[in-house]
Amino acid sequence: MRILLINPNTSADMTERMVACAASALAPDVELTAFTATRGVPYIASRAEAQIAGVIALEMIAAHHAEADAVVIGAYGDPGLIPARELFEVPVTAMAEAAMHTACLLGRRFSIVTFSRTLTAWYEDAVSLAGLDACCASIRVPEAGFNSVTDVQHELEDDLLSLTERAAREDGADVVILAGAPLTGLAARIADRACVPLVDPLAAALGQAQLLARLAPRPARVGRFARPGPKPVSGIPGPLGAWIAHAPAGAGE
Amino acid sequence: MRILLINPNTSADMTERMVACAASALAPDVELTAFTATRGVPYIASRAEAQIAGVIALEMIAAHHAEADAVVIGAYGDPGLIPARELFEVPVTAMAEAAMHTACLLGRRFSIVTFSRTLTAWYEDAVSLAGLDACCASIRVPEAGFNSVTDVQHELEDDLLSLTERAAREDGADVVILAGAPLTGLAARIADRACVPLVDPLAAALGQAQLLARLAPRPARVGRFARPGPKPVSGIPGPLGAWIAHAPAGAGE
Amino acid sequence: MRILLINPNTSADMTERMVACAASALAPDVELTAFTATRGVPYIASRAEAQIAGVIALEMIAAHHAEADAVVIGAYGDPGLIPARELFEVPVTAMAEAAMHTACLLGRRFSIVTFSRTLTAWYEDAVSLAGLDACCASIRVPEAGFNSVTDVQHELEDDLLSLTERAAREDGADVVILAGAPLTGLAARIADRACVPLVDPLAAALGQAQLLARLAPRPARVGRFARPGPKPVSGIPGPLGAWIAHAPAGAGE
Amino acid sequence: MRILLINPNTSADMTERMVACAASALAPDVELTAFTATRGVPYIASRAEAQIAGVIALEMIAAHHAEADAVVIGAYGDPGLIPARELFEVPVTAMAEAAMHTACLLGRRFSIVTFSRTLTAWYEDAVSLAGLDACCASIRVPEAGFNSVTDVQHELEDDLLSLTERAAREDGADVVILAGAPLTGLAARIADRACVPLVDPLAAALGQAQLLARLAPRPARVGRFARPGPKPVSGIPGPLGAWIAHAPAGAGE
Amino acid sequence: MRILLINPNTSADMTERMVACAASALAPDVELTAFTATRGVPYIASRAEAQIAGVIALEMIAAHHAEADAVVIGAYGDPGLIPARELFEVPVTAMAEAAMHTACLLGRRFSIVTFSRTLTAWYEDAVSLAGLDACCASIRVPEAGFNSVTDVQHELEDDLLSLTERAAREDGADVVILAGAPLTGLAARIADRACVPLVDPLAAALGQAQLLARLAPRPARVGRFARPGPKPVSGIPGPLGAWIAHAPAGAGE
Amino acid sequence: MRILLINPNTSADMTERMVACAASALAPDVELTAFTATRGVPYIASRAEAQIAGVIALEMIAAHHAEADAVVIGAYGDPGLIPARELFEVPVTAMAEAAMHTACLLGRRFSIVTFSRTLTAWYEDAVSLAGLDACCASIRVPEAGFNSVTDVQHELEDDLLSLTERAAREDGADVVILAGAPLTGLAARIADRACVPLVDPLAAALGQAQLLARLAPRPARVGRFARPGPKPVSGIPGPLGAWIAHAPAGAGE
Repeated sequence: MRILLINPNTSADMTERMVACAASALAPDVELTAFTATRGVPYIASRAEAQIAGVIALEMIAAHHAEADAVVIGAYGDPGLIPARELFEVPVTAMAEAAMHTACLLGRRFSIVTFSRTLTAWYEDAVSLAGLDACCASIRVPEAGFNSVTDVQHELEDDLLSLTERAAREDGADVVILAGAPLTGLAARIADRACVPLVDPLAAALGQAQLLARLAPRPARVGRFARPGPKPVSGIPGPLGAWIAHAPAGAGE
Repeated sequence: MRILLINPNTSADMTERMVACAASALAPDVELTAFTATRGVPYIASRAEAQIAGVIALEMIAAHHAEADAVVIGAYGDPGLIPARELFEVPVTAMAEAAMHTACLLGRRFSIVTFSRTLTAWYEDAVSLAGLDACCASIRVPEAGFNSVTDVQHELEDDLLSLTERAAREDGADVVILAGAPLTGLAARIADRACVPLVDPLAAALGQAQLLARLAPRPARVGRFARPGPKPVSGIPGPLGAWIAHAPAGAGE
Repeated sequence: MRILLINPNTSADMTERMVACAASALAPDVELTAFTATRGVPYIASRAEAQIAGVIALEMIAAHHAEADAVVIGAYGDPGLIPARELFEVPVTAMAEAAMHTACLLGRRFSIVTFSRTLTAWYEDAVSLAGLDACCASIRVPEAGFNSVTDVQHELEDDLLSLTERAAREDGADVVILAGAPLTGLAARIADRACVPLVDPLAAALGQAQLLARLAPRPARVGRFARPGPKPVSGIPGPLGAWIAHAPAGAGE
Repeated sequence: MRILLINPNTSADMTERMVACAASALAPDVELTAFTATRGVPYIASRAEAQIAGVIALEMIAAHHAEADAVVIGAYGDPGLIPARELFEVPVTAMAEAAMHTACLLGRRFSIVTFSRTLTAWYEDAVSLAGLDACCASIRVPEAGFNSVTDVQHELEDDLLSLTERAAREDGADVVILAGAPLTGLAARIADRACVPLVDPLAAALGQAQLLARLAPRPARVGRFARPGPKPVSGIPGPLGAWIAHAPAGAGE
Repeated sequence: MRILLINPNTSADMTERMVACAASALAPDVELTAFTATRGVPYIASRAEAQIAGVIALEMIAAHHAEADAVVIGAYGDPGLIPARELFEVPVTAMAEAAMHTACLLGRRFSIVTFSRTLTAWYEDAVSLAGLDACCASIRVPEAGFNSVTDVQHELEDDLLSLTERAAREDGADVVILAGAPLTGLAARIADRACVPLVDPLAAALGQAQLLARLAPRPARVGRFARPGPKPVSGIPGPLGAWIAHAPAGAGE
Repeated sequence: MRILLINPNTSADMTERMVACAASALAPDVELTAFTATRGVPYIASRAEAQIAGVIALEMIAAHHAEADAVVIGAYGDPGLIPARELFEVPVTAMAEAAMHTACLLGRRFSIVTFSRTLTAWYEDAVSLAGLDACCASIRVPEAGFNSVTDVQHELEDDLLSLTERAAREDGADVVILAGAPLTGLAARIADRACVPLVDPLAAALGQAQLLARLAPRPARVGRFARPGPKPVSGIPGPLGAWIAHAPAGAGE
């Protein structure tokens, strides 16, 4: 089974960390391939950046999905997820969606704990997009700032653990999602100290992708997720433009 | 990884079919163990039967969960699921919950297609219990009756396929769940003829159980899903009574 | 008019208190008969216990409903209520459901004040089961513990009154439900000191049962609450098994 | 116990019918007093008429509530209900609210069957006002017209029974409310022919009023339903103006 | 274009302030005409007063709408709005509805900041009536009292600004509505000091009325907002009674 | 007042039609400037195309908003709306959002009538994004196809009028939105034949933009819609990249 991991951020070290953390979430028969965005921003943090990153995700999936049994968009907030599900025939999931639905199997309500207030508007929109507002107890962020997005999970470890405790005791969360690609791997490290189960969004997304790959659903031929017919495009270069135009893959380039 | 499959119906042949169909949903490193209820009804179809079956499921999990990494309750409608999640520390899922959350990764709205009208009240309650009313486009059942619950998926195959088509075209379903343990395996057989992706609830539940087992969440120590403290019991025999009493496993028998 | 009061807890003194408090809630033409569970737990406090108690409630109704015009399940959380409504033809209500719908006639939002945090998950589920989440302002419990469930309403009287005040002033509750069978009778005692109207769940349940008995609704012959057809049972002894099997009342014993 | 029945329509014969039908819904210790509006419209059918009728209901309650233990506003749609609950200290209910909450004790979803399409906008608003949209399966009205609002329950009896059947079988209603004061008494007459339980709104309102009177809730002293302080009024004559001004009852006249 | 502004309060100085503040909200081609209620209360603050004021608003619109292209009911809480929309063929809006829908174009969630706790029940009902509960982050009022409703916007200016800040930072409001006719004009004065955009409800209502007037929608001929047919009335004097009766305008007087 | 109209489709003739139809919706003091996308697709019809078009809308606003008092995104479905509201300080609205909130001032429920089934998934998402699911009675499309998107409003005029009738009579719509830029102007042409009021989305959007411009809200300085801080970008050319980077406008090119 081949899983394709698309990182729509331009930070290659984030991709590396994700690949390193993926091992425990993969069955023995799974092969993971990861790609990092070659344009965009180092770390998506606003909805405007997510609008752009969603197109970048589509470009990357268009370029690389041919061999994949399932695709994971490796950003919490899920840029491009619904358009990708509409456009491509391979199953696609993403970190927020997968984490939240997984959390629903561990309790009635989840809280989302993340590391920066600027992310919360986007993360909150992802809750609504998934139709899970009633299941989200709270979104919590530390008061403290941090120096490096690469090290933020270590810098703020105690704060994030403390917020987990408060989410459980004050907000009624049964389970906590540690959200944001830079927190990948943190859940495994602090699980024993947390008072409720934790969800690592990348682990959840890889798990859901494997489930979908084994389920091998046939693509929709009617309705909201059937692939749109061919469309003339201008100024949409590369494999994405070609895929939208139903043209040979190299045609749009 | 060891997955425990609990069939709270008394039909051993249904358990056999489930085990036979499980293979394609399991990773190479997964060992599946299945048990059939030794008391109750042959096939749970009402909420009163589900109330009783929920206790039977708890009894079975109490007796058999010691070695398991995750548990699947093998009945659509999920008898005993929430109490089991509260009572035991191993991750537990069930067919309706798992199928519906899986369906949410394939589209915005799912329909549930099943084989008997008597099941719909119970299945509808399962949608609400999961908090997914807004995602459920419809529950559809054939007009035709059937002779044998064992053969119903063959007897009604064309009707069920036709209802799938109508759920997609008339109700706006993006994905269809073929619900009810007797339909296990049908999705794989008719997928190529369906116009939208199908979800086999057993495959979904086994997939989610594997995901949960790999995630290895720590049990909740506070809140809605922390294990209740010891309680004196009377007339609740066997391992279940002992577990509630926090007594040695043989004590209650 | 005959009202049957079923206490699915095994505490006979709780039943006695309920009967003693019932007088002011009954019209002159009502005869109340009460039964205490002979197996189960002394005081139901978790959803696992409620799963079991629901079956016990069904057993007790099966044994005793023949002469009743309406049935009250005497536990807040309503174990077995929906299955009982499906299974039996006599009107059935229970303390949480009745209290919440009664509260809705006194204000737009109610709060639930109870005496132990372990009860809140179950009570919260009862709010959702009744479809009244939007009407529930809060569920509040005292910080203090207590020595005896029999005396808890006296031990914590000031705390419960103070929480009522906070529910009204901080949470926007228009009315407060004093929930849990051990609080039966407390509302009458502290009503004059409370700043919003109080609902005693037993009084509410007896009132709704009388209303239903006078309304004398015919049993549903179709749909979600029509009595299920006969079903073979094994290991479900006594009148309940017989009722499910549509067998003579003594047959299953 | 004294129940005050306020008919905000100007049709005295409708009041008479309501009083005649009330007997079976009243306990032996209840005394019912009824008043008919002396201004307004013969039969309220629009929301503009209901706005006016709400004031008339307040005027009537202001004039007559002194001796009452509970008040019933005798119009389905509940003109003036929430303002009356805020303004007066006696418990007040009305036909739509009481019927719908009663219906919730008989099933998960109710349908409303009434006799004229012009009523449906108002009745639908009453569902939302009660917060029960999710419990309302449908509102159905006959295609046929009628000659006399006094006889409409006989003229359209077969149509209304047939709509009840369709509400149950097509819309999934577990219980049907026969709505509109002119249908008072119809439920009792056709109950045996209906496939699901029926609710007579007047019987429900009288039952809820008795429950509230026995519960004897203290008036709210804070919050949404505390009586507003004194207010200068002009052009609001009679007991209502005096009550709002906190003036002696004759002062405003 | 002619806009009719109806003030259902009896305070003429409030009407004057509203007219004075209207200028910046009106296009050059708009003529505004304003009327003050001649009966009722000086300042509507409860739902009982709003029930009465709604009838007064209908009376005033009946008397003055003949020449208008759109009508604004100049009270936050919108007394008589839905009945007016049903009864008259000219577009009608009101301050709460218009402010809330305008706020939705500036952010996902609004808070309502007003000057007296007694108003909040009514204002909260207006949120629900508009179907916008999910968009309302909070309703906040100052702890401090005030001497004069005419000067309240100056007396409490700092408190209201501070509540705006808290609504944004603590409640997650993207935009704040300064609600209540006495606050008209405050938004313009403090906008530069507020950390989120402010909505002045009168400015919003006048803007929406102009939009509706330019849109020139045809009156509904079917459904919930078609004008009701003629109805006999008694005790409903003046143009309103005549309009309901479909009688000549002077007939009812 | 200057309103900027951004057409994210590449069809210049659609822009021309929109400008031609705009006159009746504009006050005398409004100057409208319109731009057509120079890359993308001729007519956006899927969510993948909308993802791309959202970026194109952001590019166009970045390039042209300097002089505008308000911006209208001229596509129903509102590509880029929320990101634009976050990113830019000028008020921004779009055709779906503006039409739906305007429709809410004309009735309780609207239906959306459009010309092609492929649009409905996108339009339905716009309903949810606006939080107005409860207000949307239906989305209806003709069975018939059409030859030219430019002429579709004439080709299908009778079908669209007929669907309006059905939306009102069968779905309970109080008002109908004729959705999709190609239908601009149709509402004015068929209004007299429709049984409920119609909303022209462009007219609504221009009206709301004027309202917002006159309201002159200050930009949010905190929360979900405060402008994000500077961000390094790569491969995001032109004014949009510069704006995100907080760089001089020409810097990113």
